[in-house]
Amino acid sequence: MSNPFFKNKGPFKISEIINLLNLKIDIKNKDQYINDINDLLTCEKEDITFLHSKKYKDIAKKTKASFCLTTKSLINELPKSCIPLLVDNVLVSTAKVSSLFYPDSINDYFDVSVKKINDTKFKAKVNFGQNVLIGSNVSIGNNCKIGHNTIIEKNVVIGDDCYIGSNNIIRNTFVKNNVKILDNCIIGKHGFGFFPIKNKNLRYPHIGIVLIEDNCEIGCGATIDRGSMSNTIIGKNTYLDNQIHIAHNVKIGENSIIAGQVGIAGSSIIGNNVKIGGQAGISGHLKIGNNVEIGGGSGVIRDIPDNTKVMGYPAKNIRGFLRDNK
Amino acid sequence: MSNPFFKNKGPFKISEIINLLNLKIDIKNKDQYINDINDLLTCEKEDITFLHSKKYKDIAKKTKASFCLTTKSLINELPKSCIPLLVDNVLVSTAKVSSLFYPDSINDYFDVSVKKINDTKFKAKVNFGQNVLIGSNVSIGNNCKIGHNTIIEKNVVIGDDCYIGSNNIIRNTFVKNNVKILDNCIIGKHGFGFFPIKNKNLRYPHIGIVLIEDNCEIGCGATIDRGSMSNTIIGKNTYLDNQIHIAHNVKIGENSIIAGQVGIAGSSIIGNNVKIGGQAGISGHLKIGNNVEIGGGSGVIRDIPDNTKVMGYPAKNIRGFLRDNK
Amino acid sequence: MSNPFFKNKGPFKISEIINLLNLKIDIKNKDQYINDINDLLTCEKEDITFLHSKKYKDIAKKTKASFCLTTKSLINELPKSCIPLLVDNVLVSTAKVSSLFYPDSINDYFDVSVKKINDTKFKAKVNFGQNVLIGSNVSIGNNCKIGHNTIIEKNVVIGDDCYIGSNNIIRNTFVKNNVKILDNCIIGKHGFGFFPIKNKNLRYPHIGIVLIEDNCEIGCGATIDRGSMSNTIIGKNTYLDNQIHIAHNVKIGENSIIAGQVGIAGSSIIGNNVKIGGQAGISGHLKIGNNVEIGGGSGVIRDIPDNTKVMGYPAKNIRGFLRDNK
Repeated sequence: MSNPFFKNKGPFKISEIINLLNLKIDIKNKDQYINDINDLLTCEKEDITFLHSKKYKDIAKKTKASFCLTTKSLINELPKSCIPLLVDNVLVSTAKVSSLFYPDSINDYFDVSVKKINDTKFKAKVNFGQNVLIGSNVSIGNNCKIGHNTIIEKNVVIGDDCYIGSNNIIRNTFVKNNVKILDNCIIGKHGFGFFPIKNKNLRYPHIGIVLIEDNCEIGCGATIDRGSMSNTIIGKNTYLDNQIHIAHNVKIGENSIIAGQVGIAGSSIIGNNVKIGGQAGISGHLKIGNNVEIGGGSGVIRDIPDNTKVMGYPAKNIRGFLRDNK
Repeated sequence: MSNPFFKNKGPFKISEIINLLNLKIDIKNKDQYINDINDLLTCEKEDITFLHSKKYKDIAKKTKASFCLTTKSLINELPKSCIPLLVDNVLVSTAKVSSLFYPDSINDYFDVSVKKINDTKFKAKVNFGQNVLIGSNVSIGNNCKIGHNTIIEKNVVIGDDCYIGSNNIIRNTFVKNNVKILDNCIIGKHGFGFFPIKNKNLRYPHIGIVLIEDNCEIGCGATIDRGSMSNTIIGKNTYLDNQIHIAHNVKIGENSIIAGQVGIAGSSIIGNNVKIGGQAGISGHLKIGNNVEIGGGSGVIRDIPDNTKVMGYPAKNIRGFLRDNK
Repeated sequence: MSNPFFKNKGPFKISEIINLLNLKIDIKNKDQYINDINDLLTCEKEDITFLHSKKYKDIAKKTKASFCLTTKSLINELPKSCIPLLVDNVLVSTAKVSSLFYPDSINDYFDVSVKKINDTKFKAKVNFGQNVLIGSNVSIGNNCKIGHNTIIEKNVVIGDDCYIGSNNIIRNTFVKNNVKILDNCIIGKHGFGFFPIKNKNLRYPHIGIVLIEDNCEIGCGATIDRGSMSNTIIGKNTYLDNQIHIAHNVKIGENSIIAGQVGIAGSSIIGNNVKIGGQAGISGHLKIGNNVEIGGGSGVIRDIPDNTKVMGYPAKNIRGFLRDNK
């Protein structure tokens, strides 16, 4: 995968993957090396991919992957160049194989590499407060400020003219130029993604990052989780108020305004010039168009087309909502 | 009470209690000692209890307590072995007497006993970050990690293989084995429990603890308050997403999954295998059964039986909700 | 303005203001000094004010200001003593002029003036935890406690008998006597106020403060933003539970009780003896009367008169809500 931070521990022989999954399969070329795991679309030859739903059959037909974790009923959706590996639970198996390639992306332990900023090369370059800690693999641009007690953990790139306030924890994150992050935010931790298994759930890797584009402002107390297979993105000049939760893989467009205590569930995509009122919630895997306005307190459970104003729970056309609730 | 952390300052003579409450009562055995205060059910002989509502008359009839704070209309619900003490406001009087026995449980001042972890016996045992503080009466099992700036205040027991992230404050809490607590959580502070009194409210003691069972994960920014008269419990292998608020006395079962920004009000009981969507709220003193699914954004104001899927505000059967809101 | 914290950099010549706004206006007395910018009502002679809506025409007629930023259609609402300055966007121009007078109130950079409390005059007076930082222009009364890692930034006045917990950041705030602020709060930062401009929004100054009256309790994780042109106020003996967001200019009365995760949007006014259930949200610029009860999870989008109980989204009379939702 194209993530710059998590090291791919591969390649692994396909026989190692088969053993890992306890599969009773006989394969000709057991010693073939597999370079990476990825989704159907972005896989290359000598990669492994996964197919768990007919929804993806059109993409499946064109995958370049050499192997695919799937189930019996989906075999025929794959091209001849892709050898199916039949498993009981495609997503659990995918989690296991991803963990093999990217073991560092499963658990979010605190960064033991951090040093006091006074003991780093940033001492002269950055305007910083007390007790600031900086991890390995961090770069910081010109004219930046970092407030008290903030921890920039490993794998963070910060552009020019950025302000990072106090008490923040940031990891696995790209911050472009002229971004303000206020206080008490947690940015870049893994998302709430795991397979529920009785007595002991199974976490899957989060290989994505958080990307915060130019001129954004992130309010106090935000939690912005990094993506699992893709990135979490906050578009240019988008402003977030306090206590907002942005789940993994969410992508927010440009020039959007999101008021306090809003929550956006995993993998939803929000357009440009969108306004979201306080405490509104957006379910996962939705597409919210451009120039949409969502009233405060709304609960959005369906896609919303461009240029629409909605309100209510479930959110519907704002005129209808106000008419029905005089 | 069975709380391991808050010291019972008793016994006190019943005459001391009568004086504390400014009661004009004449009692034969003024010098009798009272060992403890507790609810009707768990009281022992030579304890004092309280009865403020007819709802509890069945339990009242069987109480073993020697004395009971109550009102005139409820006298006849008590057994002869239990002497009623008539007061104007049962709950306020109960708060005052509880405060006499457990003065340390009213206010949650920061723990002055904390030391830098480097100056404690945990230096060699725990894998820890910078600026970690540890209070008195703390025990930590094998193979644990504690992140930067985290404060383990007094009265905390942590089991084996636990991960406590950065910027957390934990007190009055039992953490079993293999638990992950991410960043920025406040666990074990007193609940939002007090008697509203004009110009100056009266806080009552919180003698319970927080108990987090094996294999749980607690997301970033959680607030989990300890119980007042009983404990707040998170059951085995239950996972909480970010920015969740769990009020005092709440009990959550096993294998449950609670998404971001959910709030559960005081004393509600949640079953096993429950799924709660993001931003849902559950009112106080409710019983949510096993295998219940609550849609994101729902407002639950009534009990929910086992094996039910609900959504909406107020939450109702999910099919009905979606049918009514096409 | 009457704010005690933000220094007025004026006076400025009216010609400097005209140049700042790129106005092509010819004015007789170019060298006249302008002392301050303020709203129509509180402006004095030789101040500049602004008028952007007919709503304010009654106040406009009586303004004492020497100049007023406004548009052509509103010129006739001003008295002859007040010279109109015609601009394209009144609020944007107001922001620019306010920024000229009060440049320190636009951005909330971390306070570089802070020192370890051990190195300040408060060392002997305050009971404090580890890593406490105190900024310039701070005063603290008698018998106060401040917990670990808390930062009292510049421009804070704390009265007697106050308890400030751990991990808090407080700035530009007046705390009266006997107030408790628990852990992890951010109090006094600027509000979420700016003019949306494509590619780069324009923040306007927040010259107000936060005022927390006697006997209040603020729960964990609160964000209370300071006002823009007026103050944000929490009235006497009002208690806030955890994870509450109070936006700029909000005023809450006395003896009110606000449960967990409530959000109150900008400039709303809440009366005395108000009870707000968990997760309720109140839109901006509303007036909630005295003795109002708002059910948990409600979304309030209209004013509520005194002595009313409401529930629902949008919130309406509670009896009607429960009847319609049996």
